[in-house]
Amino acid sequence: MTTDTAPAPTTEATPLDRLKACLARIDADEGRIRAFTAIAREEALRAAEASSARWAAGAPLSPVDGMIVVAKDIVETHDMPTGEGSPIWTGRHTGRDAAAIMALRAAGAVILGKVTTTEFAATEPFHETTNPHDPARTPGGSSSGSGAAVAAGFAEVALGSQVVGSTLRPASYCGVVGYKPSVGGLNRCGTFDHFSQSCMGVFATTLAGAWATARAISSRAGGDPGHVGVTGPDTLPPAQAPARLGVLLPEGWDKVGPEARAAFQAALDALSAAGCTILTPDTDAALAAFTTSIAVALPLSKRINTREGAWPAADYATRHADQMSETIRDRALWAVPARQDSYAEDIAQRAAIRAEHERLMGDFDALITLAATGPAPVGLSWTGDPSMNVPASLLGAPALSLPLLQAEGLPLGLQLIGTRDADAGLFALAGWVETALRG
Amino acid sequence: MTTDTAPAPTTEATPLDRLKACLARIDADEGRIRAFTAIAREEALRAAEASSARWAAGAPLSPVDGMIVVAKDIVETHDMPTGEGSPIWTGRHTGRDAAAIMALRAAGAVILGKVTTTEFAATEPFHETTNPHDPARTPGGSSSGSGAAVAAGFAEVALGSQVVGSTLRPASYCGVVGYKPSVGGLNRCGTFDHFSQSCMGVFATTLAGAWATARAISSRAGGDPGHVGVTGPDTLPPAQAPARLGVLLPEGWDKVGPEARAAFQAALDALSAAGCTILTPDTDAALAAFTTSIAVALPLSKRINTREGAWPAADYATRHADQMSETIRDRALWAVPARQDSYAEDIAQRAAIRAEHERLMGDFDALITLAATGPAPVGLSWTGDPSMNVPASLLGAPALSLPLLQAEGLPLGLQLIGTRDADAGLFALAGWVETALRG
Repeated sequence: MTTDTAPAPTTEATPLDRLKACLARIDADEGRIRAFTAIAREEALRAAEASSARWAAGAPLSPVDGMIVVAKDIVETHDMPTGEGSPIWTGRHTGRDAAAIMALRAAGAVILGKVTTTEFAATEPFHETTNPHDPARTPGGSSSGSGAAVAAGFAEVALGSQVVGSTLRPASYCGVVGYKPSVGGLNRCGTFDHFSQSCMGVFATTLAGAWATARAISSRAGGDPGHVGVTGPDTLPPAQAPARLGVLLPEGWDKVGPEARAAFQAALDALSAAGCTILTPDTDAALAAFTTSIAVALPLSKRINTREGAWPAADYATRHADQMSETIRDRALWAVPARQDSYAEDIAQRAAIRAEHERLMGDFDALITLAATGPAPVGLSWTGDPSMNVPASLLGAPALSLPLLQAEGLPLGLQLIGTRDADAGLFALAGWVETALRG
Repeated sequence: MTTDTAPAPTTEATPLDRLKACLARIDADEGRIRAFTAIAREEALRAAEASSARWAAGAPLSPVDGMIVVAKDIVETHDMPTGEGSPIWTGRHTGRDAAAIMALRAAGAVILGKVTTTEFAATEPFHETTNPHDPARTPGGSSSGSGAAVAAGFAEVALGSQVVGSTLRPASYCGVVGYKPSVGGLNRCGTFDHFSQSCMGVFATTLAGAWATARAISSRAGGDPGHVGVTGPDTLPPAQAPARLGVLLPEGWDKVGPEARAAFQAALDALSAAGCTILTPDTDAALAAFTTSIAVALPLSKRINTREGAWPAADYATRHADQMSETIRDRALWAVPARQDSYAEDIAQRAAIRAEHERLMGDFDALITLAATGPAPVGLSWTGDPSMNVPASLLGAPALSLPLLQAEGLPLGLQLIGTRDADAGLFALAGWVETALRG
């Protein structure tokens, strides 16, 4: 195993130094950010001390040994409660670690705390987490605390999830790297996330950190049962120039403002100048046809998710309706007979669009678009527009939000969407894009 | 909806009468059988009263309105604890109903209690449940209480699960109908069962009861996320004669004793006399080739399950090793790097065998074999040999154990294995087989 490109050793600071820096930021700023639901301060200090000793002895357990990690509050931890962003479950201890947490602890990572999620990782904010770049703005969601904690310097990595836009949108709004793997790529066992197109997502300060974290999980705990999980080297694959990128303009692109459009176009121009061929729906017929097919991504995803969310919503509604948002209560209405036919049609349509995407990716190294329609909107009651994120979610394809753009002086993510189960290739390509745009 | 073939209305007794009969049997025999981990007596009486009123008014909610149901203790119930057959979790309340329980309650079923499972639905008995036909013998497992409760008249239907042989083997040993659906066929959300080839199973006194229960679940809660779930009529499909049945002689057939072989051969002769063509590996080359391919089912399934069972075993082992059997602790050893390659090979081999089975089923209406190597063995520390059950589990194909045979004066199940996602066809065929053999 080579560890020379691993995130931890690239800094002079020991894991214990880094944890103390995170704790100092938390003590200074958590009152404003409100990212945490629980902090395991003593346990984290002990883990960071042990990790520091391993590095000092030249015997780290993995490239992420000592990485300071927080987890979305749908991910179970044996030492902290898992509240799911719902008053029904606030404070509940499940007494076990999720597969990903188990794997990260085995790899030496420091599990510092649990961070906020919207109600059941859907659309309604339960906590009032703020964006580290502007406390009047949302950090995005549903992985609100994950994006905010990494952006605020409270942690180096955060686990989240994405079934529509819950990882890449907050990553874009908060100005950090966001990674949604291929569907099934990271083991979700022990998380309250059972949706068929949902994935565990990773937030990190660097591309290398996101990749090493994903591999620390998948090499130990694999993917979802029945899936091999993300494969590749344990540290960031070497940068690789793409030959052809396809510009994806998802349904909802009309909401993208002029500054964001200009930032995106400037990025495309720079990548073109660096030697990459950029094709658009205007210049490629297959890309144009795919753009039309994927335009249904949001309503199709919502129908699938609502059906799959009938449980547990319908069960909870029988005893806890007054503690549920209208959005979640509405899912209970789907728990009725005669919905199998429409669900069968919906998942067949999703499979057909995935097959079209697979064929398209014979012609392109990746698709490129924005990770959000613009910077984080003002207000904490809405986590923002998911239009740019839902295509990759529906496709089950790997996607990255890279914190390379700005609009209105705020972060805006550049999104790359790869080929399903070829996540390492997407990271290699992203490394080249980062260098091309940052110089 | 036609209800004239539904189980409930075929008896004169009301649901309340039927529940009281079950409770009387429990009061008389549970001390010997030890099938239950919890009984919700008052809740069940209330539900049965309400159901009786609906039938009296001519307005049942479904064909299973009033069905007396118990559930394996890996299936969550909001009103009873879910112990998973482990001292670690005994008495734990999760506060919610599994998707299948939610669906059955919505269909009017009476959820009477929770019944025993081996430790984490694997191989080690935790409770000392006995076989209703002979208290010195195992009821089979891992769904030990499910098979025993239905055989003892404690309930009309029981939910179980099967990843290797945990539904069909206890059904065979206990002399009741056992049904393992196509993989993904019944929604497992809210059960402690995350294995990729595992299914929720159904035990019932009748074929009609097993089918109506499965459809009450799948029509409301669907299948596992991403799967449509079992489809077909809400009540038992009309019997349909098969043209061709293929005799499957799984690896381990050499353990089948002379009485069991004779009973099986007599059944084949009777089906042949009734007009069905019976082919064997000696008379059909494709069947012979498939028999060779499927011979690896048990070691291949064990490798897949051990890998997928690394979580939560490895997590529990860090804090509860002294409360875990050696079998489960061994799974923790798999939570190490470099296992992804072998898992990838294993699930690819499984997929190849499934594809061969699908091609084979172009030639056969179903495969036929025994549901166990013989009657229930003596002793409570071993739940019996799964050799006859693991082929259908590996295939993800629907399978039924029909209580039509005997050996040593004890029950022995005749097993039918159908085509994946064609469960209704298997039940139609099974209806014909029942009539042909019972006369």
